[in-house]
Amino acid sequence: MPAKLATHSYGKSAVRLTKVKRLADRHELIELEVAIELRGDFDASYLAGDNSKIIATDTMKNTVYALAATHPIDSIEEFGVVLARHFVQNNAHVRSAQVELAQTMWRRIPTDPGDHPHAFASAASHRRTARILDARDHADVFAGIEGLTILKTTDSAFTGYLKDKWTTLPETTDRIFATRLTASWRYGENRRTDYNTAHDRISAAMLHTFAHHKSLAVQQTLYAMGEAALDACPDVAEIELEMPNQHRIPINLQPLGLPNQNEIFVTTTEPYGLIKATVARA
Amino acid sequence: MPAKLATHSYGKSAVRLTKVKRLADRHELIELEVAIELRGDFDASYLAGDNSKIIATDTMKNTVYALAATHPIDSIEEFGVVLARHFVQNNAHVRSAQVELAQTMWRRIPTDPGDHPHAFASAASHRRTARILDARDHADVFAGIEGLTILKTTDSAFTGYLKDKWTTLPETTDRIFATRLTASWRYGENRRTDYNTAHDRISAAMLHTFAHHKSLAVQQTLYAMGEAALDACPDVAEIELEMPNQHRIPINLQPLGLPNQNEIFVTTTEPYGLIKATVARA
Amino acid sequence: MPAKLATHSYGKSAVRLTKVKRLADRHELIELEVAIELRGDFDASYLAGDNSKIIATDTMKNTVYALAATHPIDSIEEFGVVLARHFVQNNAHVRSAQVELAQTMWRRIPTDPGDHPHAFASAASHRRTARILDARDHADVFAGIEGLTILKTTDSAFTGYLKDKWTTLPETTDRIFATRLTASWRYGENRRTDYNTAHDRISAAMLHTFAHHKSLAVQQTLYAMGEAALDACPDVAEIELEMPNQHRIPINLQPLGLPNQNEIFVTTTEPYGLIKATVARA
Amino acid sequence: MPAKLATHSYGKSAVRLTKVKRLADRHELIELEVAIELRGDFDASYLAGDNSKIIATDTMKNTVYALAATHPIDSIEEFGVVLARHFVQNNAHVRSAQVELAQTMWRRIPTDPGDHPHAFASAASHRRTARILDARDHADVFAGIEGLTILKTTDSAFTGYLKDKWTTLPETTDRIFATRLTASWRYGENRRTDYNTAHDRISAAMLHTFAHHKSLAVQQTLYAMGEAALDACPDVAEIELEMPNQHRIPINLQPLGLPNQNEIFVTTTEPYGLIKATVARA
Repeated sequence: MPAKLATHSYGKSAVRLTKVKRLADRHELIELEVAIELRGDFDASYLAGDNSKIIATDTMKNTVYALAATHPIDSIEEFGVVLARHFVQNNAHVRSAQVELAQTMWRRIPTDPGDHPHAFASAASHRRTARILDARDHADVFAGIEGLTILKTTDSAFTGYLKDKWTTLPETTDRIFATRLTASWRYGENRRTDYNTAHDRISAAMLHTFAHHKSLAVQQTLYAMGEAALDACPDVAEIELEMPNQHRIPINLQPLGLPNQNEIFVTTTEPYGLIKATVARA
Repeated sequence: MPAKLATHSYGKSAVRLTKVKRLADRHELIELEVAIELRGDFDASYLAGDNSKIIATDTMKNTVYALAATHPIDSIEEFGVVLARHFVQNNAHVRSAQVELAQTMWRRIPTDPGDHPHAFASAASHRRTARILDARDHADVFAGIEGLTILKTTDSAFTGYLKDKWTTLPETTDRIFATRLTASWRYGENRRTDYNTAHDRISAAMLHTFAHHKSLAVQQTLYAMGEAALDACPDVAEIELEMPNQHRIPINLQPLGLPNQNEIFVTTTEPYGLIKATVARA
Repeated sequence: MPAKLATHSYGKSAVRLTKVKRLADRHELIELEVAIELRGDFDASYLAGDNSKIIATDTMKNTVYALAATHPIDSIEEFGVVLARHFVQNNAHVRSAQVELAQTMWRRIPTDPGDHPHAFASAASHRRTARILDARDHADVFAGIEGLTILKTTDSAFTGYLKDKWTTLPETTDRIFATRLTASWRYGENRRTDYNTAHDRISAAMLHTFAHHKSLAVQQTLYAMGEAALDACPDVAEIELEMPNQHRIPINLQPLGLPNQNEIFVTTTEPYGLIKATVARA
Repeated sequence: MPAKLATHSYGKSAVRLTKVKRLADRHELIELEVAIELRGDFDASYLAGDNSKIIATDTMKNTVYALAATHPIDSIEEFGVVLARHFVQNNAHVRSAQVELAQTMWRRIPTDPGDHPHAFASAASHRRTARILDARDHADVFAGIEGLTILKTTDSAFTGYLKDKWTTLPETTDRIFATRLTASWRYGENRRTDYNTAHDRISAAMLHTFAHHKSLAVQQTLYAMGEAALDACPDVAEIELEMPNQHRIPINLQPLGLPNQNEIFVTTTEPYGLIKATVARA
C-alpha cells in the first residue's frame, strides 16, 4: 500500500474542572478547561491497532483531576507545566506534550460588608489562557487572553488605503473600533516569572494602549498593544495578537428624514476584518 | 377547506443597535438587541396573500433605528414603551405590540487617572432585559436579567427528598450551587419608577440573598431571591425566576488512590435541573 | 412577609440518550434529548426547604434511562407518553408531567451492496420533536419538526404592503424565500395514530406545499403549509408553525460596474422576520 | 523601542454568499462562506498607520461578490483559485493569498414527479471545504469536509493500552464509535482534477472504510480512512484527518435493577478524545 503515516498526535480535550480551596476565612474558586495533546511513538496504533504504547485519553482526564487534587493551582501556567511534565517524564516514548488551559473569570459577589467569602458571579465572557509545550529537553510557556471584547467610540480613523476598481468603502476619520481580542505571549527562559502579576500587568497595558491610542489602522493599534505588552513585562519574549474588526456600520437615516450625527450604528459581528501579528523583541 | 387561522403574530427579531451619546466630557455607549412582535388584523395576508395591512418587518427595523436616533434611551424600559406605543398608535389595526430588548453590559476601561471617557470592555456575559406588551388600553412593563452565572461553594444542602426505586443520588449537606439566573419582573401601575435604580436594587438584592442563603433546596433559594426582589422595590408586582442547576459533580478519586475533601469537581452544564417559579405580592 | 408562591414547576433538561437495537440483520440507532417538567404539590420545598415530596431531578434522569432500557422506543411520541405517565401514576402529588423529546436524524451509510447494517451518518441538522403533557385525567400529544432549513429561489413575491414614513423596502415579485421551519402539531383523541407514518406524511406535505406555492407573503405560504398538514393526516387537530425569514439580500453590483440579474445575494440569518400562526380545523 | 514586527497577515472572514443559477429547466443553488487572508508588504500600516498598501477588507468582500457574479462557481476549488489569484496578480506587494471556502449542503425537495427544480432543503450539518494558498510562483489546492458526524454501533474495540497508576478505563471489545470527521486533502500538481467527482469519490471511500473497518483503535480507523482516500483519487498527495471521539458511555443500570446489554448509553460530546494524523503517499 503506497501510503505512509506522515504526522500524528492525539489527546483529550474539554476536560472541565472546578477546584475549591477552603481557606479559613474564605473560599477560592478555580474553573478550568484543559486539553492535552501528545506526540511520540504511537505509530503502531495507527498502522496495526497495537495500543500497547497508547495512554488512554480517559487516563489523561483522570490525570488532570488527580494532579488538580495534589497541586495548588496558584496559576494555570504552573499547573500546565506540571501536567505537561507528567506525561513526558513518565512515558519515555512521548516526544512532546502540549497542555492548553482556559480559565473562567469569576468575581466575588459584593455584599455588606465587603466581598462575600464563598459566593461568586461570572466576571466576564473572556477567559485567561495558557499553553505549555514540553518537548522533553525544553518547555515553552505561553499565556494569554481569549475573547476580550473591547470598543472605543472615537480616536479611530481609516484613510489613505489602496483604491482599486472594486473599492467602495468611504474614508473616515472617526469611526467606532470594536474587537474581540485574543492574545498569546511566550515567556522567555527566566523561570521566576510571577505569572499572575505578569498577566495583570500585560492585560492592563494592552487595554490602556487600546484606550489611549489615536488609531490610524487596526494594524497600528494592534502593534502598539503588542509593544505595550513587551514593555510591561521584561519576561515576555514575543506576543501574538488577533483582532477581528467587529464593524459598527453607521446607518443612513436620510431616507427616514433624520440626521445621523455619528450616533446610530448597526452592530455586526460578521463579516469581520481579521488582523493578526506577532510582535517580538528587536 | 376545513381549516381556519386560529392565532397569529409576526415581527422582526435580532435588530442590533449601537448608540453613542457624545457628551462634552465622555461618551456613553448603548448596545441593544430588539425584537418586535405584532398581533392584529393581519388575516388577509395569511389567507389571501393580501399584504395591504402588513407593516413590513423591514419597516419595523427602520423604526427601531429611527426612534433610537430621536429618543435618549436612558433606560431600555422607556425606549421599549415608546417603540411599542409607536406601532399601536400609528396603526389602528394593530391589537397589541410586544417589544423585547436585551442590553449588552459594558464597563469603562480603567486607566490613569480614572475610567476612560470613550473606551469600553465587555463587563459580563449576562444581559439586562425588558419586555413591553402594549395592548392599546393597557401596557405591561417587564424588566429582567438574562443568563447571570452565579455560584456558591458552600451553604447548600439537598437532603430528605423522595426516594423511589430509581433514586441513586446520595444526600449531601455541603454541595456547590451553580446556576445561570434568568429573571423577569413586572412593574405595577405606578409609572414613576426609576427603571435604572430599580434594576440595580433588585439585582443586588437577589445576589445578596443568593450569597447569604443557607440553602436546603434550589427551590427554597429561588423563592427567597424572589421575595428579596419584591422587598427591594415596591413597584414590582411579581417576579419570575428560572434557575438551571449546573451541577458540579464531586469526583471519586479513591480509584486513583487520592482523597477528595470536597475540593475537586467535574464542571457540567448538561444535563441540568431546571427550577422555575413566579413570586407575587400576597 | 407579603409574598406568595404564584406558580412553579421543576424538572430535568438535556438528558441525552443513545439506544442501539441489535437486530439479527442490522442495528437500529436512536438518539434523543429529553426534558421533564413536573407541576404539583412542591410548595414546601420553595417555602420551607422541605424536600419530602421532591423527586430529585437526578432520579428523573435515571428514570429516562431505565424506561429507555425497557421500552422499544418505536416512536418518540409513544416513549414520551410512557415517561409522562410514569411520573403521574407513581406520584399522587404530581398534577401534571410534561415530557419534551428531540430526536437526532441519522441515515445508514450507503455501501456496496445497499445500506450498511450498523454504520450511520448524520442525516440533517433538524430534529424530530414531541411534547407530551399528561395532566392525569387527560394527555395531549404534540409532534413536530425543529429547525428544518428550506429555501426556494423563485415563486416568492412581496408587494402591496402598508407604506409609512419609515418604509424603504422596495417591492419585489421575485425574491429568494429561505426559512428555518419549526412546527408542532397536536394529535386529537384517536389514540391509534401511527406516529411514524403520520410524521412522514405531514412533513412531506409541508415540504411539497412550500416547494409548489406561489407565495405572495411568508404568511400565506405558512398558512398553506398548515392547511396541507391538516389535510395529510386526519388525526391532527391543529398545527403551530414558526418561520423566521432568513433574508437573502440582493447585492447592488452597479458600483462595481457589474450587473446583478437576481443571481448574487448576501446570505443572512439576522435580523430576521419572524412569522407565526396556528392553523386549526374549522 | 526594542520591538519588531515578526509576522503578520490580515483579511476578511465570514463573507456569506448565495448564488442562484437560473437554468432553463431548473435553478442551481450555491451557498458559501469565504475567508481571505493576505501576507505581504503591509508593515507600514502596523508601524506607522500608513495604509497606502492596504487593500481594505471591505474591498475584499466586494471582490468576492464581484467574482462570484462573473465566475460560474462549478466547484469551490476553482472559484477559490480564481479569488486567490486575483489578489496576487493585481497587487505586486502581496506575497501570498489564502482563500478558505465552506459550502453549505442542500438537496432538492423531492416532489411528484422527481426533485423540485427550485426548492431546496438543508441536506446535512457538515460542509464541503476548500483552501487555496497562492504564493505567487506556486499554489496549493486543499479540499475537504468539515464536521461530518458518523457513528458505528459495533466493530470497534479498545484493548491492550498502556496502564498506569491512574488508568481506570475498562477494556472493551464492542463499543460505539462516534466522531465528527474533519478532513482536508491536498491535490498534487496535476491541474486537470475534476474537483466535484474527486470530492464524491474521496468522501465515499472514507465513509465506506469507516463502515466496514474492524476497529482496534480510533487511530487505526483514521489511518485506514486516509489510505482509502489516497486510493480513491490518484491526484491526492496527502490528507489530514481529525476525529474527535464523541464517547457514548454505557450506563450502569444495575443500581436500577435492570440489565444493560450494550443497548443504553449516555450521549456525550465533551470531554472528547481528539485523534489526528496526516497520511501521505509513500
